[in-house]
Amino acid sequence: MSAHDAVEVISVKRDRGELSDSQIDWVIDAYTRGEVADEQMSALAMAILLNGMVPREIARWTAAMIASGERMDFSSLSRPTADKHSTGGVGDKITLPLAPLVAACGVAVPQLSGRGLGHTGGTLDKLESIPGWRAALSNEEMFAQLESVGAVICAAGDGLAPADKKLYALRDVTGTVEAIPLIASSIMSKKIAEGTGALVLDVKVGTGAFMKDVDRARELAETMVGLGKDAGVHTVALLTDMSTPLGLTAGNAIEVAESVEVLAGGGPADVVELTLALAREMLAGAGMTDVDPADKLADGSAMDAWKDMVRAQGGDPEAELPVAKETHVVNAPDSGTLTRLDAMAVGLAAWRLGAGRARKEDPVQAGAGVVWHARPGDTVTEGQPLFTLLTDEPERFDRALASLEGGFDIGGEHTPQDLVIDRIS
Amino acid sequence: MSAHDAVEVISVKRDRGELSDSQIDWVIDAYTRGEVADEQMSALAMAILLNGMVPREIARWTAAMIASGERMDFSSLSRPTADKHSTGGVGDKITLPLAPLVAACGVAVPQLSGRGLGHTGGTLDKLESIPGWRAALSNEEMFAQLESVGAVICAAGDGLAPADKKLYALRDVTGTVEAIPLIASSIMSKKIAEGTGALVLDVKVGTGAFMKDVDRARELAETMVGLGKDAGVHTVALLTDMSTPLGLTAGNAIEVAESVEVLAGGGPADVVELTLALAREMLAGAGMTDVDPADKLADGSAMDAWKDMVRAQGGDPEAELPVAKETHVVNAPDSGTLTRLDAMAVGLAAWRLGAGRARKEDPVQAGAGVVWHARPGDTVTEGQPLFTLLTDEPERFDRALASLEGGFDIGGEHTPQDLVIDRIS
Repeated sequence: MSAHDAVEVISVKRDRGELSDSQIDWVIDAYTRGEVADEQMSALAMAILLNGMVPREIARWTAAMIASGERMDFSSLSRPTADKHSTGGVGDKITLPLAPLVAACGVAVPQLSGRGLGHTGGTLDKLESIPGWRAALSNEEMFAQLESVGAVICAAGDGLAPADKKLYALRDVTGTVEAIPLIASSIMSKKIAEGTGALVLDVKVGTGAFMKDVDRARELAETMVGLGKDAGVHTVALLTDMSTPLGLTAGNAIEVAESVEVLAGGGPADVVELTLALAREMLAGAGMTDVDPADKLADGSAMDAWKDMVRAQGGDPEAELPVAKETHVVNAPDSGTLTRLDAMAVGLAAWRLGAGRARKEDPVQAGAGVVWHARPGDTVTEGQPLFTLLTDEPERFDRALASLEGGFDIGGEHTPQDLVIDRIS
Repeated sequence: MSAHDAVEVISVKRDRGELSDSQIDWVIDAYTRGEVADEQMSALAMAILLNGMVPREIARWTAAMIASGERMDFSSLSRPTADKHSTGGVGDKITLPLAPLVAACGVAVPQLSGRGLGHTGGTLDKLESIPGWRAALSNEEMFAQLESVGAVICAAGDGLAPADKKLYALRDVTGTVEAIPLIASSIMSKKIAEGTGALVLDVKVGTGAFMKDVDRARELAETMVGLGKDAGVHTVALLTDMSTPLGLTAGNAIEVAESVEVLAGGGPADVVELTLALAREMLAGAGMTDVDPADKLADGSAMDAWKDMVRAQGGDPEAELPVAKETHVVNAPDSGTLTRLDAMAVGLAAWRLGAGRARKEDPVQAGAGVVWHARPGDTVTEGQPLFTLLTDEPERFDRALASLEGGFDIGGEHTPQDLVIDRIS
């Protein structure tokens, strides 16, 4: 005889009640074991989405998901650890320069990343465009690389929060992704189980982000920061703008190339700014306040760490990156100031060109994506190249072009937007 | 490429929007075919439960469920048809005397019934306590019996509203039963597909009913009456009390015996009253206003129709009914007026004695149940028998007795409760 049954637990949340600790522990464990069926969990997820959870419930839900799997422990490493999580944006390649940069500053970065689904790209998809690089590491390899190189970007193993893995896949197909308690517990269960000492959350806001408005983004950030602190992880969140895509590229290989520019001391100003802002938070979280990460970009040590990191995972950092077979250039239809460049429009175009996937099992094209040749505030001249579209399959151009329509404005007033909107700690 | 996808449809209802006709048609059809998965439909069902549906959506949902299967047509019968549906109550054997009574008045009754689940019994379970009686008829057998006898009580075939069959089983395990749009469309899709010309709904209100409060019962009744009328079925609903169980018995064979008493011109007053009230509505709905059903109880023609009906389905109406192996008598603990007898307490006791089932695949005991020897308003004397509990398995007595605790009051003021609370047409 079970302590609870699924209909009882679902009914409590359906009727706007609070789930008890025992109900939460039971339902997560029973779902992981398959005793609670997918159709029961999805009904519960919808009830949570519509009726919410109080902080105690979210904390317990997160703890139960952590308890469904293994926990990692980096305390035996010779340096402190810090990790970053982004809620996902267009052109968001920040993890690529950030992890080796922070490692170069003396803090170990155990970055467990995912593949992309939908219009925001995945960090692993980008890195896999580097010839030879592999995402799958054993725990032992990860530890060894953290000790030797200081930075790892790899796929999360199956052992961490298996309840979340199962629930995330379910939410994806049942319209129950957009629930703050479920988003927060999903992200934080993995990060807490991963065992990082400090965590910086990059919560994106804007058209290209999961959270379109700042109030919901702030609520998510506050919920996650609370969960991290309760679990003893030094946690800070930055709310950052995602109405405009980051940098000048959205894709896979082209984002790696842009990241390498940043590591070489160049690159788009916004990518550099956000990389440094997040690096400073990670270093502060790890208690390392006397190092300026900008110095490590300037002196080449971040680039060295990047090359070491890529090599340690079988990649060749000097190899030529894949190039798309076909290109299509979109010229500026007018002259004037580029006053708007919509992140969602660019993200969808890159996705439709083959940089992203529609279903988990689809491959991505390493060379596909979008390059834009101006950022909001820049002046453009009619007829100059505004976008370059890249794909191996030219039949994809039409739909990509359609998604760019209405995605930018030339002329009118340009209101600069702060990249870092708020900091929550 | 599908016209819609499940996440799109779920998201509309999740975000408090209205589903389009095309979305509803698609999701019901795709669910029936298995293209929409159970976990997607249960998330949609929870969103419908929490965010509701407007009348247009409910009507379309019902139509789509009807369209998922076959429709019957009784228009070639030599007499008009009328059917009754009860939302389920304790001791609710009304269908048993009602169907032959209405048939004896000249109206054909094509009563498709179900088996019980939980504390309310099922009409088919009751009839199956008659030796030889069988619930499964082909459509041809049903037609022939309606023409010859005028009354059929049988199991609904798999052909009617298969979408509802699948959805009902899903709702049962996902905490999504209590949604008025889904209850109304489930009941009405089957009744409309069945092809009855007139329909009377007995919507129960009270502790032993699915609807505990009169406002929700009225909302359900109004929704169903609206659906019936829109489909061209003459539909009326009675709201009737289910705070007290009907008659003096709750079980299977014992309810058959009580029904036969009513057909013989006797039986408990409340069972007679409700049977006649529903019969008059069915006759009026079928345009037969010049017959008084009370006459057909008095002159034996309803009893004749009962016997014909039982025989036509293989049963022996003269056979002895099964008797439980064990009995346990509960005596009145005080003297005074019985002022309350709780329908839920009695229903649970009968269920725990083996008259009902916990899971669809469980058998029921033909002889099990509860007999009560007084009704609210009656005077009882300390030590007189108040309940007789019946079961084949004496280990069931303890839990049945526990469910009767606090289920009745002796002494204090008795406030009579109207059996028929309201009529909605």
